[in-house]
Amino acid sequence: MPLQPIADLVSICVKQGITDVILSPGSRCAPISLAFVRHPKVHARTISDERSAAFIALGMAQQSNRPVVLVCTSGSAAYNYAPAVAEAFFQQIPLIIITADRPPEWIDQWDGQTIRQTNIYGQHVKASYNFPDEFGHHDKIWHGHRICNEAILSAMQFPQGPVHLNVPLREPFYPEKGESFEFDREVNVTSGVKTLSTFADETKEKFKERLANFKRVVIIPGQQRPDKKLADLLNEIASSKNAVIITDTISNFQSDVSVNFHDHFISAEKFKDQLEPDLIITFGKSIISKGLKLFLRKSNAQHWHIQPGGYTPDTFQKLGKIIPCNPLDFLENIKGFLQSDRDFVAAWSELDQKVSAHLPPLVSSAAFGEYKAISSCLNFIPHHAKLHLANSMAVRYVNFLGKRPQEIICNRGTSGIDGSNSTAVGCTFTTKDPVVLITGDMAFFYDRNAFWHNYAMPNLRIILLNNHAGGIFRLIEGPSKQPELEEYFETKQALEASYLANEYGFGYFKATDELTLEEGLRDFFKKSIKPKILEIITDSPKNAEVLKKIKSSLNEIL
Amino acid sequence: MPLQPIADLVSICVKQGITDVILSPGSRCAPISLAFVRHPKVHARTISDERSAAFIALGMAQQSNRPVVLVCTSGSAAYNYAPAVAEAFFQQIPLIIITADRPPEWIDQWDGQTIRQTNIYGQHVKASYNFPDEFGHHDKIWHGHRICNEAILSAMQFPQGPVHLNVPLREPFYPEKGESFEFDREVNVTSGVKTLSTFADETKEKFKERLANFKRVVIIPGQQRPDKKLADLLNEIASSKNAVIITDTISNFQSDVSVNFHDHFISAEKFKDQLEPDLIITFGKSIISKGLKLFLRKSNAQHWHIQPGGYTPDTFQKLGKIIPCNPLDFLENIKGFLQSDRDFVAAWSELDQKVSAHLPPLVSSAAFGEYKAISSCLNFIPHHAKLHLANSMAVRYVNFLGKRPQEIICNRGTSGIDGSNSTAVGCTFTTKDPVVLITGDMAFFYDRNAFWHNYAMPNLRIILLNNHAGGIFRLIEGPSKQPELEEYFETKQALEASYLANEYGFGYFKATDELTLEEGLRDFFKKSIKPKILEIITDSPKNAEVLKKIKSSLNEIL
Repeated sequence: MPLQPIADLVSICVKQGITDVILSPGSRCAPISLAFVRHPKVHARTISDERSAAFIALGMAQQSNRPVVLVCTSGSAAYNYAPAVAEAFFQQIPLIIITADRPPEWIDQWDGQTIRQTNIYGQHVKASYNFPDEFGHHDKIWHGHRICNEAILSAMQFPQGPVHLNVPLREPFYPEKGESFEFDREVNVTSGVKTLSTFADETKEKFKERLANFKRVVIIPGQQRPDKKLADLLNEIASSKNAVIITDTISNFQSDVSVNFHDHFISAEKFKDQLEPDLIITFGKSIISKGLKLFLRKSNAQHWHIQPGGYTPDTFQKLGKIIPCNPLDFLENIKGFLQSDRDFVAAWSELDQKVSAHLPPLVSSAAFGEYKAISSCLNFIPHHAKLHLANSMAVRYVNFLGKRPQEIICNRGTSGIDGSNSTAVGCTFTTKDPVVLITGDMAFFYDRNAFWHNYAMPNLRIILLNNHAGGIFRLIEGPSKQPELEEYFETKQALEASYLANEYGFGYFKATDELTLEEGLRDFFKKSIKPKILEIITDSPKNAEVLKKIKSSLNEIL
Repeated sequence: MPLQPIADLVSICVKQGITDVILSPGSRCAPISLAFVRHPKVHARTISDERSAAFIALGMAQQSNRPVVLVCTSGSAAYNYAPAVAEAFFQQIPLIIITADRPPEWIDQWDGQTIRQTNIYGQHVKASYNFPDEFGHHDKIWHGHRICNEAILSAMQFPQGPVHLNVPLREPFYPEKGESFEFDREVNVTSGVKTLSTFADETKEKFKERLANFKRVVIIPGQQRPDKKLADLLNEIASSKNAVIITDTISNFQSDVSVNFHDHFISAEKFKDQLEPDLIITFGKSIISKGLKLFLRKSNAQHWHIQPGGYTPDTFQKLGKIIPCNPLDFLENIKGFLQSDRDFVAAWSELDQKVSAHLPPLVSSAAFGEYKAISSCLNFIPHHAKLHLANSMAVRYVNFLGKRPQEIICNRGTSGIDGSNSTAVGCTFTTKDPVVLITGDMAFFYDRNAFWHNYAMPNLRIILLNNHAGGIFRLIEGPSKQPELEEYFETKQALEASYLANEYGFGYFKATDELTLEEGLRDFFKKSIKPKILEIITDSPKNAEVLKKIKSSLNEIL
């Protein structure tokens, strides 16, 4: 086995700051796995289901903001990573995906666990490399080193994302007695340097002139991680009333001065004129509110998007300016030039405050169901918790309910239900703070292999809204009218989590009404050795009714 | 919603002979799902985990030899199909994968559940199509129809395989009151016609001349489904002693006159000269025995491969002739020209018979473990059962143990562990015969979502060899010597199937020794409403010991 190139690969990863690796078992990947495991500075964990492994790595990198390495064997293993790779690509999370492979001459020769791995992740990785499979010529050593450096730098460069390193390996895969990995060989490390983009004075002057024309400015941060400095700046702008800051829960910027309840009033035709902006400034990634998107697409506003690099989506079909800059720098530079009409700002703020005042009593007087249960649970979640929200209804409900003190995490890159458990599990590997996942039964059971490993997750708390179906399909107009609703859309499913909790020795409490929910929440966040699940059983048709009722009550009030 | 093009798509599928569809829930795919569900000739089932859904479809198509349609929504759902798509590609199983998508202008615009779906399966589909998203020009209707025909014909053409049809759809996704799918519109159907390839007399004459030079001919069928005519012909050739027929269990051609136990003696250096062939004739797909492959790669034989079309792997590194023909036709034509030395044929046959005589008593006198347990179970399996074998050890053990009366099914396209439960579940949807799966704990728990649906599988029987680990790693030389064996290769796992059985209401019996196994087997194959699991708990180190001991005992005897 050519140990040295693999040892060098690991050395370079470590020198580039990588500390965490998620391995999945396999034979062809053994040299790579062993090298990572044996490096004194690497923390390796092994997860058997590669689909979960990759989402776990994503959950770790999401928090640490450093690339996490994935290692799997050859064959279909690599394809099980794919859903998380796509999520990482669109959520811009750095992952280094290392797939062992047969040497190229053995592809398509009907040997076991051999598929066509080169470029297997297509357009969902930032870059894809084939590691050399021969080291006879000394350039090959340099090639191997260069590829590792390139891969890591590419993963970390804005926008961050996954990269793929396919590593062909020949037998033997296991070091013989006396053979070992030498991690102290000199390897070249190409380091990335961070730069700031700034404006020339004349550009700043131009922005001043331009902004003078806009009297109805909204600033909408898309999904991103909490950022204290930027939050302070946004609050300052909101307080100055020179612009409206509209925030979804996944923006992690909801505050007392931002507009947080727009989802409840933005679609009403009667407010259109009052609320229509003339300038939309955005940064960060996606937003949740479909209503807000449709409203802005219909408006006559200009749209500026602040983003240091990468392609820019035209979310509102009117992208006028791409500002290749850090949002903090840009907003700091132009905040003095914002000057929206008081009426415009007040209109947003009044509607927002009305919802803020009337929604809680409406929810608390509603019949027991998901809406009310989530609302109750949110009050109990420790403020320093990491709050993971699964697609599809969990994140929507929380978004309805306004600002939270916790960091909000949700896989909105692809908005899939396939990896929410695993992402939360990955998060527990990075923090001792409570990691709370609010999820539905479809997402929960889909990704149950997230828990199939031997690592402790004492800080994991799962609030499972079980309506025995993909309840979202009942909540949207179209499918609820089809005779096929229950079998083909909601997909009635019978499972409850008590079996799973038993199987893994997790703490478990089942709530079926307000009283049992209160009881369940009492000790739910107390420290424990094992994760805990609070399963809340609700009725899908009833949930739909409550949602409808609250919506119409609010509409009457507004 | 443009209902008609989707109704036409379904019409063409049905007219091309498709009857079965596996749906996964989603909103964007609703028009496609509804159209399939509403067609009177389509049997639609819904499976929530797309990874399992795709392997279930594969398990169905594997049996029916007709394409099964998969339908999923946009986003990462499509990527969860990928492991099964790769398996179908290399196992040459026809699947029509229909993925709903946003229209092209909305890709990369940060809308939910949107990834880059065009060509998402890369080199693991036979063809990939984008359905039109606009039907303003009348050529577009023709384009849609043409694509459907092309896709199905491509999937069915030798070598069969998966094809991808990406269907961009705009809202609304649900038919309004009064709207319905019209399935009786005239659509063009392009039918595929089967041909036979045959030889000119002079070619036959040439083969006669050539074959006269070979005195040590082996015929090795790779993986394929049972084929009575071909089996009769192979038995005739074997009985004539003009060639040696060497068969793995997955060839479905093992008989009393074929060599079935080669794995036990082929690697011994001392038999090399006796057994070395001068001509290898192969057909079908992969073989399991690594020993056989290595032996033949080192030999000086010529290799001819019979295959009607497609690329031909050079499995033994000496591919001399590709014969683009049906194996039955070719062998029928040349069987009279085969004339191997009696000694050569006898050498193979004697060794095979020796193992055949000595292996059973060795196994039955061994300590209780996987080897013995599988051997006992095999005696109980009904002859008309479909016998599914999981990778990695299940299929190897059965291969060690010689011929079976049942059809043997195993995902040897990619040899992954990711879909063996689902493939067996798919099989139960096609037959009332018993469907028996022999699997290990890693494969079983990996694919547990195979059972997460509402369809009956009364004929499913699972024999689960639980050694709480990926025991194969202890059975191969390299990893068993590494200190990391238990944590990073075997991946100790604690689960037992009783919880799962409970959760799904499956019958369950746990065996821990010969006595309990016997008890468990007694009623195991009796009819039932629910599937049954027979879990056999064994000890991984002990299994390794038994395997080693039997091997060395056999070596002494031979």
